[in-house]
Amino acid sequence: MTDTLIDGRAPSVADLERWLESDRVARPLRLESLRARMAEEEVGAYFGVRRENIRYLTGFELGEGEEKVAGYSGQFLVSADDVVILADSRYTVQARDQAPEARLERVYNDLFSRWSELLASIGSPKRVAVEAGFVSHAMWGKLAAATPDVELIPAEGWVETLRQVKAVAELERVAAACAVADHALERLLPSIRVGVSEHELAMQLEWEMRTNGAEALAFDVAVLSGPRAALPHGSPGARLVRDGEVLLFDFGAQVCGYRSDMTRTLFVGQPKPHDLEIYKLVARAQQAAIDAIAHAIAEGTRPTGRQIHIVARDIIADGGHGDHFGHGLGHGIGLATHELPSLGMSAADTPLPSPTVFSVEPGVYLEGEMGVRIEDLVLLDAAAGRVERLTDFPREVIVVGG
Amino acid sequence: MTDTLIDGRAPSVADLERWLESDRVARPLRLESLRARMAEEEVGAYFGVRRENIRYLTGFELGEGEEKVAGYSGQFLVSADDVVILADSRYTVQARDQAPEARLERVYNDLFSRWSELLASIGSPKRVAVEAGFVSHAMWGKLAAATPDVELIPAEGWVETLRQVKAVAELERVAAACAVADHALERLLPSIRVGVSEHELAMQLEWEMRTNGAEALAFDVAVLSGPRAALPHGSPGARLVRDGEVLLFDFGAQVCGYRSDMTRTLFVGQPKPHDLEIYKLVARAQQAAIDAIAHAIAEGTRPTGRQIHIVARDIIADGGHGDHFGHGLGHGIGLATHELPSLGMSAADTPLPSPTVFSVEPGVYLEGEMGVRIEDLVLLDAAAGRVERLTDFPREVIVVGG
Repeated sequence: MTDTLIDGRAPSVADLERWLESDRVARPLRLESLRARMAEEEVGAYFGVRRENIRYLTGFELGEGEEKVAGYSGQFLVSADDVVILADSRYTVQARDQAPEARLERVYNDLFSRWSELLASIGSPKRVAVEAGFVSHAMWGKLAAATPDVELIPAEGWVETLRQVKAVAELERVAAACAVADHALERLLPSIRVGVSEHELAMQLEWEMRTNGAEALAFDVAVLSGPRAALPHGSPGARLVRDGEVLLFDFGAQVCGYRSDMTRTLFVGQPKPHDLEIYKLVARAQQAAIDAIAHAIAEGTRPTGRQIHIVARDIIADGGHGDHFGHGLGHGIGLATHELPSLGMSAADTPLPSPTVFSVEPGVYLEGEMGVRIEDLVLLDAAAGRVERLTDFPREVIVVGG
Repeated sequence: MTDTLIDGRAPSVADLERWLESDRVARPLRLESLRARMAEEEVGAYFGVRRENIRYLTGFELGEGEEKVAGYSGQFLVSADDVVILADSRYTVQARDQAPEARLERVYNDLFSRWSELLASIGSPKRVAVEAGFVSHAMWGKLAAATPDVELIPAEGWVETLRQVKAVAELERVAAACAVADHALERLLPSIRVGVSEHELAMQLEWEMRTNGAEALAFDVAVLSGPRAALPHGSPGARLVRDGEVLLFDFGAQVCGYRSDMTRTLFVGQPKPHDLEIYKLVARAQQAAIDAIAHAIAEGTRPTGRQIHIVARDIIADGGHGDHFGHGLGHGIGLATHELPSLGMSAADTPLPSPTVFSVEPGVYLEGEMGVRIEDLVLLDAAAGRVERLTDFPREVIVVGG
């Protein structure tokens, strides 16, 4: 995938234009799918607030966390015939530029007093679906009070379910983000040595990505050494890298809206036999999970995320570390770092979607001692019979500057 | 303030320790204030999800946006006698370390099935306050269903109202973050020249902050040139800086959890007379607003945020640009970039709190042409009779490499 689609190079202006054009072409189809669900659920409108969803459906872009300062800007309504973006004066120019097909409504502090009028402008729906997992309870109450005769229907996953099935132009961007991350870690290797701090390495890895093709990080870089690698979500600190320890990197890039996510656990200096054993156990669990997907696809079936999680979990449990792998095996990725499909015990009891991309990231965490996680993104395209890693950085035991 | 407290230097390890110690001492008093409010509202527990609030009340730290991947970790319950932090296996070590006074409950995917037991462990309150502006409607519904006999009370602003009144150790950190930002812009000046891109300048300014005392950015750096300065929240792009244009920087640093926020509008090459006029109008409006606060304090009164907004707005309107200043005059700042108090037309009709710190940031935006905003953080300490800027970078007309 990385070879044929993006060839490991930094995305060019032509790539970006092609991807944005592909989004423009796809948006009417995405809206059509959402409207089919709306018809099925008998709602006349869909009210959304998630930044990933507005970008997916309209092209309007908000940065990660920008919702917090954007007020109602970037919230949106979809009816059978209309797409309406709310934007205050700070965002109107941008909205016209990025989402020319949508109608713009200037809303600042007056959403609730204008809610009834906004609904009237899209045909006065009697039932309105609302993103209940993201709209606050307080906001829900104010919307309900603004139009007591309109029924608000909690909608969860309506757009997210669509987003998990990816077009080629979306997979290409995830692959491009994987390539950016691969190369960044390669370039970081010479800087890894005893005495450098986690924080310095994290800063440098971030810089490698952001000056070589990443428009942003997918999430803050994690660099965790020695016993700190047992913190699956710790932040890089002042701790200095020591000889004979593991060094865990969890990081990802964003390219034209789409993200990557990768974890590598390296060894600084001569690995301890026990640490190597843990590493090999985790690597085996990861490979077995990916093989199980490939095997199912080759047989013409698609496994569930739960089945694949269990493949990896059983191997780790057989190795005596069942209690040291406490999280799910993986998650979908795209406009959000964590999205559908989910691979874990509580994953949906339905076959994995296709084409899609998700992480496979088993880990073993020994508190106070060490931790190992190996994470790759895996492309699944059942129709093409393809199951392959998009992250290319080696997974073999790697010993760095001890 | 910057001189006496932090002296413009990068914070030392001793500063950090002193600040964290001050937080430790303050937390019981903060909890006492929250409990007084809880008693007043007759609730037996407070359930919170905001990352700023858990840090303020317990010391447990989540990064900006980390809530999205943290699950229920970092959510918390306060009762008359107890503070309980929810954390899954990824966060337990960190929670024990940062919030040793709190009791830890391991919760992963099972919050709702364990909700009743959790409430029982803090004395089975019959009424529970919930952060309704931040808990999703879906989550609220599940909590309500889990304990139908418990009444959920929407709580908005209970902790946020406490947070707006700042201790010296909090103001010091805001001042330190201001100093980091001041110095970063100073160091950037030689790099500003015709032909450099907004994006390059933004990256360099970010780097200056993060390698010289900022643990993180307060928000993504905005660098907007020429007509793009009319986008009050645009993102820096590929546009190259041109001669004779304005160049707007909006940026802030984070130091030990606390943030700064500053905007400067510089001139690249010889300023156009019209642009200069706009600049002077905005600068006059800003100075008048700050003078009005100082005047009120000197007279022993405290103005409302609305009154101060009107001072600035009237000057801009008298200058013929009332329609080109569409946002509020300012906002409080601390653990969050935007917090109470608010300065604007919809601000609370109560005197500004004290001691506190907030931005004063009038702007004039001429779509398709240019924009000017000047933003400083202002410390208000009524008891000490102090009203002063914490951001020190010059506000005079500054002409850079044309």
